[in-house]
Amino acid sequence: MNVLVIGANGQIGQHVISKLKISEKHNPIAMVRKKDQQLKFEKEGVQTVLVDLEGSIDHIVEAAKETDAIVFTAGSGGHTGADKTMMIDLDGAIKSMKAAKRAGVKRFIIVSAIGIHKWHENNHPGWMDRTPYYSAAKYYADLWLENSGLDYTIIRPGGLVNEQGTGKIQLGNDLEMASIPREDVATTIVAALEHDNTIGKAFDLTTGQTQIEEGIKSL
Amino acid sequence: MNVLVIGANGQIGQHVISKLKISEKHNPIAMVRKKDQQLKFEKEGVQTVLVDLEGSIDHIVEAAKETDAIVFTAGSGGHTGADKTMMIDLDGAIKSMKAAKRAGVKRFIIVSAIGIHKWHENNHPGWMDRTPYYSAAKYYADLWLENSGLDYTIIRPGGLVNEQGTGKIQLGNDLEMASIPREDVATTIVAALEHDNTIGKAFDLTTGQTQIEEGIKSL
Repeated sequence: MNVLVIGANGQIGQHVISKLKISEKHNPIAMVRKKDQQLKFEKEGVQTVLVDLEGSIDHIVEAAKETDAIVFTAGSGGHTGADKTMMIDLDGAIKSMKAAKRAGVKRFIIVSAIGIHKWHENNHPGWMDRTPYYSAAKYYADLWLENSGLDYTIIRPGGLVNEQGTGKIQLGNDLEMASIPREDVATTIVAALEHDNTIGKAFDLTTGQTQIEEGIKSL
Repeated sequence: MNVLVIGANGQIGQHVISKLKISEKHNPIAMVRKKDQQLKFEKEGVQTVLVDLEGSIDHIVEAAKETDAIVFTAGSGGHTGADKTMMIDLDGAIKSMKAAKRAGVKRFIIVSAIGIHKWHENNHPGWMDRTPYYSAAKYYADLWLENSGLDYTIIRPGGLVNEQGTGKIQLGNDLEMASIPREDVATTIVAALEHDNTIGKAFDLTTGQTQIEEGIKSL
C-alpha cells in the first residue's frame, strides 16, 4: 500500500515514515514543502513529493495519484500563529481531502487533538481556550472529513511528548487529558491503516494499558 | 419582522440598523460586543443584545429567540489579523448559524465578499492571495451556511467604500471586481429580507445599472 504522508517532516510525520518504511506492507511517500526536507528523505531512501499545501489543489491531487491512503499530520500543533493554523490545519487539511476525492484515494487518516469534537460545547477542555484558533481550525477540518464521504479515521491524541513509545494506549470518545509519546501516535496511525474497522471512527488517544494493535482492533 | 443584526456596530451593520429602523416592516435588534456600543444604540432607540461571538453558543441562541431573521455582518473585512478572522468570520459565523438552528430561526443572510466561492479554484481573484486567512474563513462560513438547511442568502459585495449609496447595483455569480458603497450593501440586505426569492441564493454584488429592488426581485 502506497501511503502519502502529508506533513512528513513534522515530529509525528517522521515517526510515521519510519514505521511505514520498516513495515512490509507499506511504501511511504513523504510529502514535504521544502527542498532540503525532500533531500533528507531521499537520502534515507524514502520516496518524496514536493508540494506546498498553501498552493493549488491540483498539486496535491498530482501527489495523491497512485497512492492508496493519505495520512494528514501537517500542522502547527497550536504553536504557530493563527495565520499558519488557518492555512495548514484548516485550509490545507480540507484541500487535501478534496484532493483525495479528486485523485480517487478513499482512505484518509488525520491527526487531530484530544477533545476537539467538543469545541462548541460549554464543557470543552480548558486548553482549547488558550489556543482557540487551533481548536477551531481542527474542529472544522475534522467535521469536513466526517462529511467528506472518504474512508476516514480521526485520531485525537492528548499532550504530545517526545519520550520513547510505550506501545500502550487508551482509546475513547471523551478521555481525560493525558500525554502520549509521538511515537505511539505514529504506531496507532499505522495500525489504523491496517485495520479497516477504524474506518468511519474518531477517537481520543492517550497513553494507557492496552497494546496498540489490540486497542485498534477492539474499536 | 424582528431582525437580529450580528455585527451591528460594524460599518455595514450600522447602515442595516438605520434602514431597518426606518422601514415599517422590521424591528432591528443590534447584537453588539461592548457595553458602550450597546449604550449608543439604546440612545438611538434601537433594541440591543450584548453577546460576545467568541463566547458560548448558548448566548447567541438566547439572543436569537423571538427573532425572525438573522443578518450576519460581523467580521474583520480582512483588515485584522488571522486570529480575529478565525474567531469571528469563521467560528463566530458558524456558531451563529448553529444558534439560528437551535433557536428555530430559519432566515439567515450573510455578508461575504466578491469571488469567495472561487477560493479553491486556480483562477480565484488576486486579492484573495493577499488576505488568504480572510478568504479561507469566509469560504468555509459560506459553505457551512449553504449546507445548514437554513433559508440563506449569501451576499458577496465587491470593494466596500463609504460613499453615499447610488441605489443601483449589479448582481451575478462571477462579477469583475468593482466597488460598492456600504450603504448599498445594506439596502440590498434589507431588500433580500423582503423578497423570499433570494432564499437559497448566493451572488456577487457591485455598483451597477439596476435599481436594488428590481435587481433583487429578478434573482
